[in-house]
Amino acid sequence: MAQKGKILLSVTGFDPAIWRTALEKAAPDRAIVEEPSGPNDPGIDYAVVWKQRPGVLNGLPNLKAIFSIGAGVDHIFAEGDMPDVPIVRIVADDLTERMSEYVVWQVLDHHRKGMLYRDQQARKVWNESKMQPAARDVTVGILGYGNLGRDAGRKLRALGFKVIGWSRTAKTGEAIDTFAGDNGLNQFLALADIVVCLLPLTPATHGILAAPFFARMKARGPLGAPILINAGRGGLQNEADILAALESRKLGAVSLDVFESEPLPGDSPLWTHPRVTITPHAAAASMPEALIPPMVEQMDAHDRGEPLKNLVDRDAGY
Amino acid sequence: MAQKGKILLSVTGFDPAIWRTALEKAAPDRAIVEEPSGPNDPGIDYAVVWKQRPGVLNGLPNLKAIFSIGAGVDHIFAEGDMPDVPIVRIVADDLTERMSEYVVWQVLDHHRKGMLYRDQQARKVWNESKMQPAARDVTVGILGYGNLGRDAGRKLRALGFKVIGWSRTAKTGEAIDTFAGDNGLNQFLALADIVVCLLPLTPATHGILAAPFFARMKARGPLGAPILINAGRGGLQNEADILAALESRKLGAVSLDVFESEPLPGDSPLWTHPRVTITPHAAAASMPEALIPPMVEQMDAHDRGEPLKNLVDRDAGY
Repeated sequence: MAQKGKILLSVTGFDPAIWRTALEKAAPDRAIVEEPSGPNDPGIDYAVVWKQRPGVLNGLPNLKAIFSIGAGVDHIFAEGDMPDVPIVRIVADDLTERMSEYVVWQVLDHHRKGMLYRDQQARKVWNESKMQPAARDVTVGILGYGNLGRDAGRKLRALGFKVIGWSRTAKTGEAIDTFAGDNGLNQFLALADIVVCLLPLTPATHGILAAPFFARMKARGPLGAPILINAGRGGLQNEADILAALESRKLGAVSLDVFESEPLPGDSPLWTHPRVTITPHAAAASMPEALIPPMVEQMDAHDRGEPLKNLVDRDAGY
Repeated sequence: MAQKGKILLSVTGFDPAIWRTALEKAAPDRAIVEEPSGPNDPGIDYAVVWKQRPGVLNGLPNLKAIFSIGAGVDHIFAEGDMPDVPIVRIVADDLTERMSEYVVWQVLDHHRKGMLYRDQQARKVWNESKMQPAARDVTVGILGYGNLGRDAGRKLRALGFKVIGWSRTAKTGEAIDTFAGDNGLNQFLALADIVVCLLPLTPATHGILAAPFFARMKARGPLGAPILINAGRGGLQNEADILAALESRKLGAVSLDVFESEPLPGDSPLWTHPRVTITPHAAAASMPEALIPPMVEQMDAHDRGEPLKNLVDRDAGY
């Protein structure tokens, strides 16, 4: 058996130790390094990265592919100068299921008046809401209808919700009504009582969740003003516009798992707004023990000559 | 066509007007009355009741069946002296789906650390929980595994949870592991990380959610101490024991939709306990427009000689 190449693990912003441990366990026949041995290290075959150290991926003559920790890959592109090798996005059941849990949890929390009932509990008020639509009367629109959105949509439909999807490029053969492009977005926003944003962050989507978007949303539905849930990326949203839309009741309530700046600064008015639910970028935790083994399997398969799966389209940026 | 008999609508505790409206719409060929025309009114064929006025059902010579508004029928038996006619329980998709929404909502709220993240938000703390089991690592036990429990269980399994059921009498052919009887309860409670109570209130279940029950629950699971969700009836629970079990960390947290006394009195310590989620008996709203038409269909079918469905077992009390 030929000697297998090294894996470069480059993680910034948090401790790489749990990822190193998972890699060592899943790939006992590969060395795991956090730095090249020097410029032009020929021994590195694959890189596993989260906000990699600037420049660390350049000049590696035998680098075959870059694997992203986490569903989004914008953190890889944040560094402009990138070697021309395939970038592999994580598509893992574990990550998908966790994201669907978050989406269903937050949709139900709005649908079932969680904010109202928690406020009533704090004031010791016993009062059943008069606004109790059935799930079948509520349309959830998934903005960024891909692998994650399809799974969340299936689970929302099992609960009885109407589900629609929007994506940049048109989809066919879906179980639900889908919309695409800018015209499609108007139709989509006219129908959605709850918008769940799972978009990737790209130059085309940056700041999309802003006043002009909110102005295109439906005025009122069975839950009142429409609801926004963003579990994509903070860079998708304009937080000043979200606060203004909450004040003008253009938005009824929001759930945000991601923010323009993370951790969310202490002086953000979002923290204390009564119609904002904040989670600390926890919608879909990347669990090394679940995500690393299929990543290493892909490396081994690629070494055997099989094609890589879930490749990023560098032009589209996701 | 023979003249159809009258429907007696007897509702106490809230305004019967919306039920009258729904009955008038669904049964335009029947008179709807809220009192018999006198003792032994021979014109009343059916009764639709919620905590009926004491005695109102007695002495009606042609009463053919009593229909309950709401899934439980304990409110009917609360009055001791009852005519010996069939009692029909509501089994309606609308009610089932609403209950499943509540169950999935509350299970996810505990599973996804809603209480923790809301507390952190109030204190402007950004901290991702270290305790993030996947749904597949969490067992939800449905106590009272009948029509409602089966639907909730199916939706929880779609999200990835392990689901087990307990019922008074053994079930066969279920998609999940089920337990029955008192021995089965021990096995059930040893497995369940989250117990969802959907039991009917009968002499056998009254006060079951009390210290001896909590002592039989598992000590710790992937969510810490076990969670209790009661959407059955308040009479099933001992609230002093629940508070004590929360204090001793025998119970990690509870969601209660029902209470020993409703509305929950203002001096109940449950209102302000940080690990208690209170909803005002709103888990599964009985919506007249959804529930009355199938009830009237059953009356018409019974008049044509067809058997009544979803009959209450008077000995079992549900």
